[in-house]
Amino acid sequence: MINIAVLGYGTIGSGVVEVLNINGESIGKKAGDTINIKYVLDLKEFPGDPIMEKLVHDVNIILEDPEIKIVVEVMGGVEPAYTFVKTALLKGKSVVTSNKELVAKHGAELLKIAKERNLNFLFEASVGGGIPIIRPLNQSLTADEIMEITGILNGTTNFILSKMTDEGLDFETALKNAQDLGYAERNPSADVDGYDACRKIAILSSLAFGMQVDYEDIYTEGITKITDTDIKYAKALGAKIKLFATSVRDEKDNIHAMVAPMLIKSSHPLYSVDNVLNGIFVRGNVIGDVMFYGSGAGKLPTASAVVADVVDAAKHLGKNIWTIWSSKKLELTDINQVSHRFFVRVNGKSAELTKELMDQFGDIELVNVDGMEDETAFITGSITEQEFKDKKDSLDNLQSVIRVRF
Amino acid sequence: MINIAVLGYGTIGSGVVEVLNINGESIGKKAGDTINIKYVLDLKEFPGDPIMEKLVHDVNIILEDPEIKIVVEVMGGVEPAYTFVKTALLKGKSVVTSNKELVAKHGAELLKIAKERNLNFLFEASVGGGIPIIRPLNQSLTADEIMEITGILNGTTNFILSKMTDEGLDFETALKNAQDLGYAERNPSADVDGYDACRKIAILSSLAFGMQVDYEDIYTEGITKITDTDIKYAKALGAKIKLFATSVRDEKDNIHAMVAPMLIKSSHPLYSVDNVLNGIFVRGNVIGDVMFYGSGAGKLPTASAVVADVVDAAKHLGKNIWTIWSSKKLELTDINQVSHRFFVRVNGKSAELTKELMDQFGDIELVNVDGMEDETAFITGSITEQEFKDKKDSLDNLQSVIRVRF
Repeated sequence: MINIAVLGYGTIGSGVVEVLNINGESIGKKAGDTINIKYVLDLKEFPGDPIMEKLVHDVNIILEDPEIKIVVEVMGGVEPAYTFVKTALLKGKSVVTSNKELVAKHGAELLKIAKERNLNFLFEASVGGGIPIIRPLNQSLTADEIMEITGILNGTTNFILSKMTDEGLDFETALKNAQDLGYAERNPSADVDGYDACRKIAILSSLAFGMQVDYEDIYTEGITKITDTDIKYAKALGAKIKLFATSVRDEKDNIHAMVAPMLIKSSHPLYSVDNVLNGIFVRGNVIGDVMFYGSGAGKLPTASAVVADVVDAAKHLGKNIWTIWSSKKLELTDINQVSHRFFVRVNGKSAELTKELMDQFGDIELVNVDGMEDETAFITGSITEQEFKDKKDSLDNLQSVIRVRF
Repeated sequence: MINIAVLGYGTIGSGVVEVLNINGESIGKKAGDTINIKYVLDLKEFPGDPIMEKLVHDVNIILEDPEIKIVVEVMGGVEPAYTFVKTALLKGKSVVTSNKELVAKHGAELLKIAKERNLNFLFEASVGGGIPIIRPLNQSLTADEIMEITGILNGTTNFILSKMTDEGLDFETALKNAQDLGYAERNPSADVDGYDACRKIAILSSLAFGMQVDYEDIYTEGITKITDTDIKYAKALGAKIKLFATSVRDEKDNIHAMVAPMLIKSSHPLYSVDNVLNGIFVRGNVIGDVMFYGSGAGKLPTASAVVADVVDAAKHLGKNIWTIWSSKKLELTDINQVSHRFFVRVNGKSAELTKELMDQFGDIELVNVDGMEDETAFITGSITEQEFKDKKDSLDNLQSVIRVRF
């Protein structure tokens, strides 16, 4: 029997308990031994819930118990999770976490501590919920140099954009919809401003390139400025708007990373990743393109990934699963040097503006939507962010700017 | 330095050499030591190719060399691959293979030998080319009971069906096309009759359910009977025809498996897997639906998967990576008891036939295509294969039968 403790009895923590209840027998076979939850840590009480037998309020009971071999941290947030997790590792316990803030900020350090002590620090559930992506990156794509990772990594924003696309809703209504369904928080900023996706692409980039990618360095733009009018233009282009979290290695081995809404067409593998689903596209220099797709959040899918990590930790007691993520900082390319095509809407009839716009941007592709004759929409050629910024400043009555991935 | 030997210098074998040449440095870092190809076994000579320095014609040189820690078998076919691989394992060498025939037939036994000797027998490249699917099944989806695996596992047939769909070609022309491009063999039977997909779903099913699924037990139907007229009907239905290899666990824990063309709609996650690409859909009882997508064949993608297995074998010298695949035979449900909806075309005008067809099949959904007024096409309700067979026998001038997944 392998004793574990679960820190946090919220959505994911109760999911972990549920998954072990439902599939405990087969999980035990795969782990090579029965997995037993000895403690659950939470500040709250849960009267009537059988978990009460295992509930403790003091983390030290867990940290000081030598019987606990694996600690599952599903509390979220950097503190006190970081202190608890670090202490658990220092006391010889492997740790499994779903906590993207913790992993993005302290992943390199915690992996190092685990390695030095022949323990494991596993975090499959921190990105893409149930979708296997961390383990494939670490263990399956090892023959490749990763050239690009692009993900739809936030289910809430993907749901909002899908609603806007399918039902013609404006952003506020679609957000309200997501909140009513429990997909978005009352304060939706972490999702809609792109911060959640930013932490996740920081984790994936650190693993893909083996060095610390600080999320603070990643240019991040959310979806709050996307309007129902933008969606109409996307449709006219046969395109969709998706919040992409992306990191790309160029031919000179420079790497840039960003989170931003992108216009994509159906030829892109992530085009059909809709609603709350997540998808992650990876391009390797020998494997070519692969894509992973599934539920990026939710109680049971996320708990499934957490428990799969528990199984792996149980199979590797005393043996570190090697993960290359050095604490050496990866210097990202200044985003201003990165080139895109840009979709732009400005007030004013195209007959009056086109010449001026072409003087400014060179060859542009005009985009027409019925009923929008009072404004001009166009797509630029591929220019750097800096060039675009410089030219954009001279535009009067700019309505909208979205990067284009075709 | 870890010395390896490559058995077979065909497409994949030369791809393995190429991948190690291109990415050798980073591969060495991930493996923890430089990977060195000491020998390549092939009966042929390769004058002018630098590989000549390493070429041997006698497998015993490899099998008897204690410096060789990992043997890469990329010859294909059951014999002599089986004898070589088994001997290598018995002599204490880990084995990596891309050989689906070998794995489908002898996987359980070879895994057992490897386990008993603290070696590894790895075969990521045997299914889905470069797409990580074996390792995710073994190590990522361990918290789940697998309820379904459905794959587009054969790139050749997927290419042919995509060509027929996109360009309205008939089967023979699309096949010729695939042959001209090198996607199909001169004798295309292994692909177009479904045998290749059958072996691959046998491997995935054995891993998913932990017991031996014999490919001979899997009902297998290829795509040779699919006509350009069928494709027209598929389009009229807003559907595509895909060769699905599928195994499903029902609510009574009975498992059935089959390879057959299926009509699917855009709501199916595999709908947009076109051309030579492969996709694998997995449903778990807690994770829900996940999908993996990428190049299912090809020199470098397949070699990437082989080399990733070499890295894993190098990281696990002396340590077996546990895989649950018992040699105990899994008894599949008789396919005649499995239910589907069936798309059927018969000669004769629908005005004349509908009443009779409804007497026979109950409620049916008629499907109309312009210019096909001399025949009647319909979709049945969900009935067992046996019921369908019985009723079908009474139909005059049956043109076509395709199972329906919506």
